[in-house]
Amino acid sequence: MLQRKDLVSIEGLRAEEIRSLLDTAGAMREVIQRDIKKVPTLRGKVVALLFYEPSTRTRFSFELAAKYLSADTVSVVAATSSVVKGESLLDTAKTIDALGADAVVLRHPAAGAAEFFSRYTRAAVINAGDGMHEHPTQALLDLYTIEERKGRIEGLTVTFVGDILHSRVVRSNIWGLRKLGASVRVCGPRTLLPPGLEEIGVSVFTRLEDALPGSDVVYVLRLQRERFTQGLLPGIEEYARLYGITTERLELAGPEAIVMHPGPLNRGVEIDAGVADSTRAVITQQVTNGVAVRMACLYLLMRRENDDRAYH
Amino acid sequence: MLQRKDLVSIEGLRAEEIRSLLDTAGAMREVIQRDIKKVPTLRGKVVALLFYEPSTRTRFSFELAAKYLSADTVSVVAATSSVVKGESLLDTAKTIDALGADAVVLRHPAAGAAEFFSRYTRAAVINAGDGMHEHPTQALLDLYTIEERKGRIEGLTVTFVGDILHSRVVRSNIWGLRKLGASVRVCGPRTLLPPGLEEIGVSVFTRLEDALPGSDVVYVLRLQRERFTQGLLPGIEEYARLYGITTERLELAGPEAIVMHPGPLNRGVEIDAGVADSTRAVITQQVTNGVAVRMACLYLLMRRENDDRAYH
Amino acid sequence: MLQRKDLVSIEGLRAEEIRSLLDTAGAMREVIQRDIKKVPTLRGKVVALLFYEPSTRTRFSFELAAKYLSADTVSVVAATSSVVKGESLLDTAKTIDALGADAVVLRHPAAGAAEFFSRYTRAAVINAGDGMHEHPTQALLDLYTIEERKGRIEGLTVTFVGDILHSRVVRSNIWGLRKLGASVRVCGPRTLLPPGLEEIGVSVFTRLEDALPGSDVVYVLRLQRERFTQGLLPGIEEYARLYGITTERLELAGPEAIVMHPGPLNRGVEIDAGVADSTRAVITQQVTNGVAVRMACLYLLMRRENDDRAYH
Repeated sequence: MLQRKDLVSIEGLRAEEIRSLLDTAGAMREVIQRDIKKVPTLRGKVVALLFYEPSTRTRFSFELAAKYLSADTVSVVAATSSVVKGESLLDTAKTIDALGADAVVLRHPAAGAAEFFSRYTRAAVINAGDGMHEHPTQALLDLYTIEERKGRIEGLTVTFVGDILHSRVVRSNIWGLRKLGASVRVCGPRTLLPPGLEEIGVSVFTRLEDALPGSDVVYVLRLQRERFTQGLLPGIEEYARLYGITTERLELAGPEAIVMHPGPLNRGVEIDAGVADSTRAVITQQVTNGVAVRMACLYLLMRRENDDRAYH
Repeated sequence: MLQRKDLVSIEGLRAEEIRSLLDTAGAMREVIQRDIKKVPTLRGKVVALLFYEPSTRTRFSFELAAKYLSADTVSVVAATSSVVKGESLLDTAKTIDALGADAVVLRHPAAGAAEFFSRYTRAAVINAGDGMHEHPTQALLDLYTIEERKGRIEGLTVTFVGDILHSRVVRSNIWGLRKLGASVRVCGPRTLLPPGLEEIGVSVFTRLEDALPGSDVVYVLRLQRERFTQGLLPGIEEYARLYGITTERLELAGPEAIVMHPGPLNRGVEIDAGVADSTRAVITQQVTNGVAVRMACLYLLMRRENDDRAYH
Repeated sequence: MLQRKDLVSIEGLRAEEIRSLLDTAGAMREVIQRDIKKVPTLRGKVVALLFYEPSTRTRFSFELAAKYLSADTVSVVAATSSVVKGESLLDTAKTIDALGADAVVLRHPAAGAAEFFSRYTRAAVINAGDGMHEHPTQALLDLYTIEERKGRIEGLTVTFVGDILHSRVVRSNIWGLRKLGASVRVCGPRTLLPPGLEEIGVSVFTRLEDALPGSDVVYVLRLQRERFTQGLLPGIEEYARLYGITTERLELAGPEAIVMHPGPLNRGVEIDAGVADSTRAVITQQVTNGVAVRMACLYLLMRRENDDRAYH
């Protein structure tokens, strides 16, 4: 059971809350496999989607999750919105609250934006990515997908490859994986590794040859092109040569390792097409499970009292 | 009862039509306080939202109003649309009509756009702001909010502070307030005051010290930053010093005066945070009432014959 | 009956498939004339609208078609989307598929995009325009409108006027009209006529005086302004003088000829206001029929087995 108004981080969740979210996602997974993917659970409720950074993938996922639960949605993407230009986040929160939104899905370039926003609205706030801080529903869908494929999370070794420094996906996953008993490794160029990870129990590598052996999950991160112009990386071919996950290189991780990626893919850079399209990759499963996980989040945060089975 | 196809101005409404809209808004206000904010009144009806100027706040308000009444919505915001670039307003009106929209919510930078549009479609056209002309639903929600807080409109004194010249909000409110028996004052820098207001019974001031005493409502206008680059104002600090509404200055208006603002706020410019967040400000109530008022407009313009109680 | 997953071209349809689509559109036309334009046919189904070129008209038409059938919709317009920047069409298709979309409406600047996309998703893909290739639902609504007004298609002569070279509308119409037994003429400046049309049985003209006599339908194409900057046309007045359809010039086609245009109109360029607003023009009927035709496409591609009468 989720005893909270908002979902702003994985760091702030207890292990049993994560478990509750994953279990509910399992029930939602069943709903979206039906021929008619619609349950009346959140009819007459409003979900506002505020995306101050564009992301069609994540927005569609949340929007479909809301619609499958029969909620109404309103959405805005930053570039077309006066929300960004003319109004402080404080006033936006008050406005959204006054408009009657029951939940707000917020993506924002500033770390802490969702937490700040949540203080000024009675609506349930779900963090859909706040700067380099967290992206909790991504971690939840990743956990769900790992468990679906591996049967468990406890005792597994999950290795993140790429730009660890700027990744809210890694940050949220580290918290989630460690709370559920998995070991976490990270591997990337020294310029893209943050300090202090070893202190929280994460193993840090700069060479795939050292990081991959023994990994149950190889989690490939998207490489942002701006890292090159920022001078953090020498060149794209160099990066692909050292850190790109190819079929050959994946063999270092052993035959049972699965490959994950948060999307969108840079094929031929951080991941080869042969890996991305293989049966070892669970990338499309991540997308599908993302809808189920977001339904679970909306449901657990928005449902009414004594309403436990409303999604059946 | 509303005996008209469109809502393009407050100037064109009779006092009893305004009264009918406010009364219906009261019933809608009750609907949106329910746990399930949804009535089947406009099921199978289509509301098209055409915003040729961005405004997330107003668009969300209309979109939610339509959805609470179970109408379907389609919306376009200018920057992402070919409507703007490639098509005359005449042809857009004909197209929207042919697509089967039952109502059109139109925001457009040209005064008279809604009136023009309404001639070429059978759909009910609601003006959501046309240039410097009118913004009738804003005035209606303001009237509703004043009456809700003050118990009446007749006999009150409402003082608008700021850029009167460019404000469609003021223009619509002047018509509405005077039709319902209130006195209207305006106060702002001489460069932002239009000529001719005294002739229609509005008292004009340039100093807050003269304008505020005796005011029941202090209506603070948003200051558009472009007024400075246009040379209409010397500087932002100067403006804030002379016309910014602070807690101290508000005392000039007496202890019962309420503060309104159409949003979004420039905190520290036209209004201090201390005022905006005080119990004397009814700014969030304006936003909430805006949804109810827009539901009333959509309902009264779109409902079918013999259908008076469909929203119950 | 439609025995296919996707609708990517008219070229690929058999005549009886076109007939089936037009007949179903007739039933849908009746639905959208009702007071409550909503049938539960596609409840719990998802239609994703992906527009990599802006077109409010076509997007609204598809979105309303989906909503009248009670499907849920999610939509993205290129400029506000990361789909375009960061992701290959292949990965977008896989993502949309994994998100659970039942149908995808795709507009894309590249010829063949819809066909490519359809290979990577189980969703029904409807081509809403792919570069200069095809725009099948436009041709279907044109065929429907011609038959509605003329009582038949077989044996008619349809003359397209304008930029034939760049027109996917003409391309789709040529296939549709010829499959249903009509004769097709095209007329335009030599620089805007593609080679090879005569080989497939289309009569090619450069002078309206030669092309219009005997035409049952005069189909006026929108002139894109960029043709002038590309050096393909000398000037806009020159074009209007030679190819603009005026009331006088329309008399060349005889008193029963109707005028069509895919919109949006350039009044005074390719078509005079006097023609566009006359009873001979069926331009608004094209728009209305477009909704019915798109409902038919969605219905026939998405409906479940043994469900023939679900739209009644």
